[in-house]
Amino acid sequence: MSDQIKKIGFIGTGIMGGAMAQHLLDEGYEMQVYNRTKEKADQLVAGGAVWKDTPAACAEGMDAVISMVGYPKDVEEIYLGQDGILAGARPGAYVADMTTSSPALAVQIAEEAAKKGIHALDAPVTGGDIGAKAGTLTILVGGSQADFSAMAKVFCCMGTNVNLCGGPGAGQHMKMANQIAVAGALAGACEAISYAKAAGLDVEKMIEMVGTGAGGSFQLTKVASRGAGGDFDPGFMLKHFVKDLNLANEAGQANGLTLDITARIRDIASGLEKDGLGTEGTQALLKHYMK
Amino acid sequence: MSDQIKKIGFIGTGIMGGAMAQHLLDEGYEMQVYNRTKEKADQLVAGGAVWKDTPAACAEGMDAVISMVGYPKDVEEIYLGQDGILAGARPGAYVADMTTSSPALAVQIAEEAAKKGIHALDAPVTGGDIGAKAGTLTILVGGSQADFSAMAKVFCCMGTNVNLCGGPGAGQHMKMANQIAVAGALAGACEAISYAKAAGLDVEKMIEMVGTGAGGSFQLTKVASRGAGGDFDPGFMLKHFVKDLNLANEAGQANGLTLDITARIRDIASGLEKDGLGTEGTQALLKHYMK
Repeated sequence: MSDQIKKIGFIGTGIMGGAMAQHLLDEGYEMQVYNRTKEKADQLVAGGAVWKDTPAACAEGMDAVISMVGYPKDVEEIYLGQDGILAGARPGAYVADMTTSSPALAVQIAEEAAKKGIHALDAPVTGGDIGAKAGTLTILVGGSQADFSAMAKVFCCMGTNVNLCGGPGAGQHMKMANQIAVAGALAGACEAISYAKAAGLDVEKMIEMVGTGAGGSFQLTKVASRGAGGDFDPGFMLKHFVKDLNLANEAGQANGLTLDITARIRDIASGLEKDGLGTEGTQALLKHYMK
Repeated sequence: MSDQIKKIGFIGTGIMGGAMAQHLLDEGYEMQVYNRTKEKADQLVAGGAVWKDTPAACAEGMDAVISMVGYPKDVEEIYLGQDGILAGARPGAYVADMTTSSPALAVQIAEEAAKKGIHALDAPVTGGDIGAKAGTLTILVGGSQADFSAMAKVFCCMGTNVNLCGGPGAGQHMKMANQIAVAGALAGACEAISYAKAAGLDVEKMIEMVGTGAGGSFQLTKVASRGAGGDFDPGFMLKHFVKDLNLANEAGQANGLTLDITARIRDIASGLEKDGLGTEGTQALLKHYMK
């Protein structure tokens, strides 16, 4: 099935998308590209990709279209807008939105796509820019088994862990669950570090001891620990975290669920973003406790 | 140094303390015991320990006294009360409170003890009743290096990971930092599980996928996962968790630190305790989201 896909339209060539598209070019796929800021596609064009002026034009004639943009409103525009992907893609084509976006919007896009005979998947990722560059992303896919199979080879050019999570929207839901777990563990880690500092404990020793027991988490050992050492460079930017937690809270509420703790962490992170820390890493949550 | 300790008074012979005292008896220490409910010391007495009617009497003539009781008010009473440990222990004796209790109280006890030439340590544990029975507790010690060395052999009969964390109170502070990290990770895990259920995801698959990435934590994989499967038996009881989080919030505030997330989790857990779930495991936090 997947051998049918030879030509790929790629929309959104920022830090993440640019690296992901490069892997597909390297693998020998023919490529058309579109990005809001044209210059960010220059390197791909120099490598053989063909620039197109709209998402619709970028989708035309392609076997598959992949998108990696910023916010749900961007996703909505590039898929459902007048010059959008669904206006340009041919019947039988595959489209996969890899942006972290709204599960409800993913379902809507899949429904609209189906009306035109287009196969839609939602496929957000974890692993950040490091994973995008290394081609080692985890890809969380929502859609049909058949469409997942058809796109599996393409996904495997960008990631080493490619998972079908369920029907349309399930990839986004899985990403939300991930971010919710991240939020709690990060907040616990940041409060534990802040407490340890205030109490005069050896913070490195605390992280080592707590990290190997019942309080242990990736966020404590690999993320918050960097902030404890004064390193606030982004592995994952605080402003993107705020976006994801807003999506998670909205999606939870759509299912009748109030995520008390996630909402409170979103409020704290959002406050820090307003203080100008949006481009720091999520470990900047520590700074809430230094105020 | 530690060879000087041959006789130990043990106060508080519940599930945790009873198992810990048994290891010391098995090791050949002479023992006097006291417990509020006498029957809970029967097995130790049958094994050779001598019953005493008050904490003071239990401390008399002993080289060391170990306590493992419930709440800070119990610790205060058995150490500083009229018939308390400091009234009975001889100068030069070692006393170690292994209850999870207030860091400030630990400092106060150490100061009062020092006035009488008694060496005091705070030494709360992690590892629960399973660790207590197996003798594999992690023991977090606050006090002087010399007193830690003197008691090291005794502690090693009860735990496999014995750590000097700093001066008086530092063991309690380290335990607080641990519980704070646990709280955040647990809440994130419970909200992720609740979200996944509401969204119709395969919850086991979510735990497996999220658990191996940036959202991974001991609490997700080993604790909340049990609740997701319908098992609410206590590894660690919710009512004890509420107690610990109250202590952590108080101790944080004593250092000018507001632990927003920990406080909110305490409120949720406290609400569940009032609903009659105090003797369930901490994974019962999930039930807040099922309301």
